Amino acid sequence: MSNYFKAPLTRRQCLSLLAKAGSSSAVLGAAGIFGLTNTPVNASPVTLKPLQGKNRKVLILGAGISGLTAAYELERAGYHCTILEASHRIGGRVLTLRRGDFIDELGSPQICPFDDAPNLYFNAGAARIPAHHTGILHYCRTLGVELQLFSNHNKNCYTQDDAAFNGQPVRIREYEADMRGFIGELLAKSATSGAVLDQPFDEQDLDKFIQFAQAYGDLDSSLTYRGTDRAGYAAGGVTTAGILKQPRPLPELLRSDFCAGAMHFAEIADQAPALMTPSGGMDSIVKAFLRQLTTPVQLHCQVSNIQLQPQGVAITYLKQGESYTEQADYCLNCIPAQLVSGIENNLPADYVTIMRQLGRGKLTKIGLQAKQRFWEQEDIYSGISWTKQDITQIWYPHHDAFKAKGILLGAYSWEPQISDRFAAMTHQQRLATAIAQGTKVHANYAQHIENGVSVCWQRMNHMLGCGAVWPEELQKTGFQLLQAPAGNHYLMGDQLSMHPGWQEGAVRSAWHALADIERREALRSTGAQA
Amino acid sequence: MSNYFKAPLTRRQCLSLLAKAGSSSAVLGAAGIFGLTNTPVNASPVTLKPLQGKNRKVLILGAGISGLTAAYELERAGYHCTILEASHRIGGRVLTLRRGDFIDELGSPQICPFDDAPNLYFNAGAARIPAHHTGILHYCRTLGVELQLFSNHNKNCYTQDDAAFNGQPVRIREYEADMRGFIGELLAKSATSGAVLDQPFDEQDLDKFIQFAQAYGDLDSSLTYRGTDRAGYAAGGVTTAGILKQPRPLPELLRSDFCAGAMHFAEIADQAPALMTPSGGMDSIVKAFLRQLTTPVQLHCQVSNIQLQPQGVAITYLKQGESYTEQADYCLNCIPAQLVSGIENNLPADYVTIMRQLGRGKLTKIGLQAKQRFWEQEDIYSGISWTKQDITQIWYPHHDAFKAKGILLGAYSWEPQISDRFAAMTHQQRLATAIAQGTKVHANYAQHIENGVSVCWQRMNHMLGCGAVWPEELQKTGFQLLQAPAGNHYLMGDQLSMHPGWQEGAVRSAWHALADIERREALRSTGAQA
Repeated sequence: MSNYFKAPLTRRQCLSLLAKAGSSSAVLGAAGIFGLTNTPVNASPVTLKPLQGKNRKVLILGAGISGLTAAYELERAGYHCTILEASHRIGGRVLTLRRGDFIDELGSPQICPFDDAPNLYFNAGAARIPAHHTGILHYCRTLGVELQLFSNHNKNCYTQDDAAFNGQPVRIREYEADMRGFIGELLAKSATSGAVLDQPFDEQDLDKFIQFAQAYGDLDSSLTYRGTDRAGYAAGGVTTAGILKQPRPLPELLRSDFCAGAMHFAEIADQAPALMTPSGGMDSIVKAFLRQLTTPVQLHCQVSNIQLQPQGVAITYLKQGESYTEQADYCLNCIPAQLVSGIENNLPADYVTIMRQLGRGKLTKIGLQAKQRFWEQEDIYSGISWTKQDITQIWYPHHDAFKAKGILLGAYSWEPQISDRFAAMTHQQRLATAIAQGTKVHANYAQHIENGVSVCWQRMNHMLGCGAVWPEELQKTGFQLLQAPAGNHYLMGDQLSMHPGWQEGAVRSAWHALADIERREALRSTGAQA
Repeated sequence: MSNYFKAPLTRRQCLSLLAKAGSSSAVLGAAGIFGLTNTPVNASPVTLKPLQGKNRKVLILGAGISGLTAAYELERAGYHCTILEASHRIGGRVLTLRRGDFIDELGSPQICPFDDAPNLYFNAGAARIPAHHTGILHYCRTLGVELQLFSNHNKNCYTQDDAAFNGQPVRIREYEADMRGFIGELLAKSATSGAVLDQPFDEQDLDKFIQFAQAYGDLDSSLTYRGTDRAGYAAGGVTTAGILKQPRPLPELLRSDFCAGAMHFAEIADQAPALMTPSGGMDSIVKAFLRQLTTPVQLHCQVSNIQLQPQGVAITYLKQGESYTEQADYCLNCIPAQLVSGIENNLPADYVTIMRQLGRGKLTKIGLQAKQRFWEQEDIYSGISWTKQDITQIWYPHHDAFKAKGILLGAYSWEPQISDRFAAMTHQQRLATAIAQGTKVHANYAQHIENGVSVCWQRMNHMLGCGAVWPEELQKTGFQLLQAPAGNHYLMGDQLSMHPGWQEGAVRSAWHALADIERREALRSTGAQA
């Protein structure tokens, strides 16, 4: 979930590059094959062939989404599964917090203090599902998980940056309307400037381009931006004529970092609408898997040794001070790679070397219980407010409008140095920080907040990090190597996908491993060497 | 609901205007008062003072949202209400269709053929509530109407225009990513062109502007657009590296009318996120009002005479062939103005003259029952596909993903000439047209559709039109005159708001009339002349 935004260029870099760029080759474009689908390839669910009496045992390490996916598919095909989970709970980074839940953060253990009510929950881990994540949606569909729409983008939320507007929060609606107005004006002007629009623009293209610019910015008939009702009215507009708001000047808008980053957040492939989320909390997916599994997940089992064997794998683990060893035909290992590399093992040296280099994201989420849903009085239902402060975002519930209380996301910080700052605080300091910073967005914030939870994923027990971070060069050389089995051992999880931090990556990494097991079982049936 | 988009300029108009426009005064902007709210003024609900034993009778003509709002508030304050409704049903243009419902379209009567299931409903009238429509949301909150998020904008939906891409549907995700890429490129170039960016841009502004352009278009480090994963991948992207799609050339993109209109639809003040809609259908709001009312709505009562009297109003109506006359202190009249002007009356002449000039929108909606939710196989959950054909839009359900069947909106046409073409067809011809045109968006459309309903609002009994259409000049001279009482008679409804076609207009026009009654009652209490 890191690297949401490209690092912006400095001015020197920009100008140098622009000089080099020359005429707009990209504007000319290139005819080519235009895919009509954005569904990732190989998105069909894996369906394993039933074993038909063959005896196969699989050890699954970790009961997050990848482990649960594998267990579900394996059991359906007749494999015997053992699921070992190091922590006190099932779900991994699918963590929906409700009253009384234990938050096992090292150095900051908490009991969730929310009131006991169905709408008072907080998705401290995975929170949204994009519509093209067909793997996890396959399980929502087949296991009966009810979904609701989720939204990142709500025009009534705020953007706040101390560098602009004297630090006052500005409605995204107003900010975007004004930015579009000025940009539309510039585009309309560009249309008459040969320096910008190259061939092969014919008259009709140019005409359409100007129409685009006008519609984009809501320009008046002289192609000038003079404000728009898109920004909402300063007064009136329902039973009396509406009075437009004064546009903010473009230089002032540009002073806010919003335009260089967050304004484009909902364009990111996995953050664009439509997004969905299970009714009642993301852990509905975990519960749905558990309803199907016959093997109970064994909690508090910490793996201490992984030994590849000629025909399988032996796993040693500690449970309540006792050591146990289990053997199996296959081991599916969902433990974070940086922890695996510290466990006694006989995995290949290059495999271990890569695991050691694989980074982990740092991420802080804070959930706040509000006494009253004050955001609804500000016409906010769902969505995200953005601030340049450490809390980065405030999310408003997408669900259960009009209830007495609600849970806000009070911080979502994925920059490592920011998350480290939160990690260094006590829980009460984190809440105080979230409230103090949130007060720049909502003036009377403090008086509404009753209690809260904070989760610094880099310190959560048995995880010590959020999504895997693959350095670019390492990914080129090491991804396929880690993805391939080491003997009968498979490393899995969202860490072995191009979507670290997303359930889709977890599901599809499980499918990838299962497809390989299927291939090997087919070879074994024919007597060949797998 | 008409006039969604400004009429595009012709090329000749554009160039002439650009020549006149001169330097960009709007870019300089103007410091001013920046409202921090987009809540329309006077949005507080009207609370009438209890009558405390005084006897007041109010006749309410029409049981749509404005009539129900008025009845609810008046009853709470102790007024005696009589609600007369001309049609066979309550709700006006809030019309949620389910199996067996009678659609009283003149010349095209239908019984809704959908299967009997909770998720198989169609909002043939009002369908969405923007978050700043505080009037209707006030009643959702106080009357316990459960809301869900609704979305106009889903990147996985399609845009289709015969003029571009050989008429093939293109995912909005791909179209928008490419448009933004090329526009971002142009903006980055503009930044070095003094002809476009005027003073007072300082170095820092320019830097920020280039960062904006880069983030806007997802440009590479040379500020060139070479495709983006925002468009989805051509292949891979989850367990293997993703391969970017080839960008479509800008001239080809411009050939589609999408960029000049629909691409900006969700920027319209009332169409921008967050939008909401009641769970189970928009008529949940009507049902919620009815639960509160003690006076039953009298159906099949057609008003035939409206007579202002010195101390009140007398209304004559026909019910089952019999004529009845009722007198009341006040009459709140929600009948469409163009119908009122044809009813015998002694209203002031200028009042009637204005009513006669007030237009009515023409609007067709078609609902289609699909045997299977084929759109989910195309990664579509909620949102709107756009086509230049008469059907204009296809909507996918925002609710009840994964159910066996679903109701699509198969056409939503608000251009009068298009809606007239549908009105001239039989119901079966309308369905055949919707299916034939929809096939350009979804190749196997016909095989999925089982049955459907069609509603041409300009022919719906007792309405003969959709939202009021105020000619600009008429609105300036006539709006306040119609809004003011004529004696003790008040014209109401969304027709007397700046939001024709929206429930918010209906609620707020009722509040406007009630506030005036309140004022008069206060004067009467003091013995003054009201």
